[in-house]
Amino acid sequence: MILPEFYDFCSRAKIVSGQNALEKIPALLAELDAGRPLIITDPGVENAGLVDVVKQAIARGLESAPVYSDVPVDSDYHVVDKIAGVYRENQCDAIIAVGGGSVIDTAKGVNIVVSLGGKTLLDYQGAGAVRNKLNPLVILPTTAGTGSEMTLVAVIADPERREKMLFVSYFLLPDLAVLDARLTRTLPDFITAATAMDALSHACEAWYCMEKNPLSDTLAFQAIDLISQNLLYVIQNPEDTQARLALANASTLAGAAFSNSMVGMVHNLGHSTGAVCHVPHGNCMAALLPYGLEYNLHRRDEIIGQLLLPLAGPETYAATPRHQRAEKTIALIRQLNQDLHDAIGGRHPRFLSEIRDRDGRRLVEKNMLPKIAEKALSDGARVPNPEELLAEDAQMVLEHAWQGTPLDRTKIKTG
Amino acid sequence: MILPEFYDFCSRAKIVSGQNALEKIPALLAELDAGRPLIITDPGVENAGLVDVVKQAIARGLESAPVYSDVPVDSDYHVVDKIAGVYRENQCDAIIAVGGGSVIDTAKGVNIVVSLGGKTLLDYQGAGAVRNKLNPLVILPTTAGTGSEMTLVAVIADPERREKMLFVSYFLLPDLAVLDARLTRTLPDFITAATAMDALSHACEAWYCMEKNPLSDTLAFQAIDLISQNLLYVIQNPEDTQARLALANASTLAGAAFSNSMVGMVHNLGHSTGAVCHVPHGNCMAALLPYGLEYNLHRRDEIIGQLLLPLAGPETYAATPRHQRAEKTIALIRQLNQDLHDAIGGRHPRFLSEIRDRDGRRLVEKNMLPKIAEKALSDGARVPNPEELLAEDAQMVLEHAWQGTPLDRTKIKTG
Repeated sequence: MILPEFYDFCSRAKIVSGQNALEKIPALLAELDAGRPLIITDPGVENAGLVDVVKQAIARGLESAPVYSDVPVDSDYHVVDKIAGVYRENQCDAIIAVGGGSVIDTAKGVNIVVSLGGKTLLDYQGAGAVRNKLNPLVILPTTAGTGSEMTLVAVIADPERREKMLFVSYFLLPDLAVLDARLTRTLPDFITAATAMDALSHACEAWYCMEKNPLSDTLAFQAIDLISQNLLYVIQNPEDTQARLALANASTLAGAAFSNSMVGMVHNLGHSTGAVCHVPHGNCMAALLPYGLEYNLHRRDEIIGQLLLPLAGPETYAATPRHQRAEKTIALIRQLNQDLHDAIGGRHPRFLSEIRDRDGRRLVEKNMLPKIAEKALSDGARVPNPEELLAEDAQMVLEHAWQGTPLDRTKIKTG
Repeated sequence: MILPEFYDFCSRAKIVSGQNALEKIPALLAELDAGRPLIITDPGVENAGLVDVVKQAIARGLESAPVYSDVPVDSDYHVVDKIAGVYRENQCDAIIAVGGGSVIDTAKGVNIVVSLGGKTLLDYQGAGAVRNKLNPLVILPTTAGTGSEMTLVAVIADPERREKMLFVSYFLLPDLAVLDARLTRTLPDFITAATAMDALSHACEAWYCMEKNPLSDTLAFQAIDLISQNLLYVIQNPEDTQARLALANASTLAGAAFSNSMVGMVHNLGHSTGAVCHVPHGNCMAALLPYGLEYNLHRRDEIIGQLLLPLAGPETYAATPRHQRAEKTIALIRQLNQDLHDAIGGRHPRFLSEIRDRDGRRLVEKNMLPKIAEKALSDGARVPNPEELLAEDAQMVLEHAWQGTPLDRTKIKTG
């Protein structure tokens, strides 16, 4: 492996993973001098019975924990401030967040307000506003995808100004990320597939983008290995707790990887597709990942080829001539999308044109692609991509990802 | 890979690595609200000119930092208390430790006393005595071996009671581990070899012992890869800063790995050999590593065989039949000792009988082996070893490691 000229890496959260990891929470909180957590979650998680699972698991060490379960899909600072009030009324001393990205970001925001003593999250905007240790925060991810439990970022909306506020601080990292298969075992197949492809895209982009480093590499490698060995198996055997736990581990490792090395054009185009068309993030990632790899081939041929090792194992890797490894890597990721599509049908879209809402309506129309491409130019994930993504190339890539045809690499403008 | 039933993993230290990593220290300390560090080091490091290198690198961001450079090889709590006084006199607000294991452990002890406000380190013995965030601690390792910059442990002697006090707390982890090739570039070849073999033993034992987990695995894998690709090259090209940095990274990754998964019989026998014969730790590790792997073969054949991948690369791994991979792994580690011996002569002992002092006197005599074996029975590293190490087996292993003959595995009593 090649070391970069310079890198830094930090991943403060303690990871606790296992078949009975939830039961460890009371003792782990006690180590942090906390014993009265507020559980923060959303209605979907609560209705799936997962809050009861958590409450039952921790009942032996903690008195009944208060629950706030109304976090909306697009949370904002009013929600954060309201939950901070609930935390104070109940004299809590820690937070247990149970959910996906929105719940986790909301919990990070609440922790800022209750730890730093302010009235509203608005008081803590701007670089360097969060520079002190916050109260104990425990994150229990209920999807194996976002990796938000390992990132130092929270995105929370300001509805009045119609913008998303970005909070970045090492202190936003939780003290504990707890992975327990009971929290993902009932995840529907299509969400399992989409979130795992999100995690795979985190790992692949951490690996091939500009800020890769030995630590992000090693975590990304492991995440890819775990996903390639377990994703299809979980779709066929959704109750297999060991394989579910493997996907949860993969998501967390991929989160720690990309949190320290950034992502690239797959996320760049994915963010803007999501913003314009309101499609699930994981679906965008699944559809765009092969194209991100393909677009960067001429700059990253060898590095992308190395991904064949965790994707296919040493035997296939060694049996594939060096100059064919990168293309084989991309072909295998396309095949994974195809296999998921074969297994669960249209609920796993292979291409942007196949992403549909519950009523079967197509969400990304071909005439939206120029707008998506234009919006992508202002996204931060454009910067760490190995190849500069020109506007016309962005649209060309989106067209191929929409109709499901491999890139014609002779038509790429840069490089 | 196989997930364990349960694991936890934590590695709080931020790693900063690069050709000019030292120059980042002032800004990184400022992020931690510190600006007046005490540099703690030992006479060997100072005489090698490394304190000047550090002072020069940080001069642009910090006023002249006071230096305490008299840490002895076997530090004790009197030294710690004395340095705590120096820290206070100089109104310091952070520590920069520059050195190997003894300096790093001493600095961790000093940080306990100055952060928690006591008069002596003796006040902080016992489990749970250190449960608060300490002052900013920056560790600059000058050997690529111990990995102490990633452990939550400090061992400090109590000369009156003739015992070693063990301090264990997540808060002993530094805030920053800074890896810069300027700190290891002038390390003599035989110390480079011994310390790298120490790091290799950390990684191998993290991989094959009982508390392995996906995170320790992935860090261990990367460390082995880096050592196998860079160690002999560095011996031939000691000034190659990129390869030096790769070894420093390997040592740090191996430290984070074993700090979260423990070590086994190689360290078990190595600790007692060191205690009885006062031999350098790295030499013991190099001589014992093949035997630890060999002794555990019948319980860990497949897991040890997986190490062939980072040691030899995918082509060799794939070309080696599965049932031969573990033995090939062990043979390659023996070969690495032989190659180091060929390159630098007797200063890299292959066997315990070859370890000599500066005057050429053998340090481990054959008649000492029974005492070493007996002492090994009370060492904590015995517990996570996959196979129970019986006393008569311990002596048998030591005899083979002394004379340099492979184990006769039919004579192992357990298993």
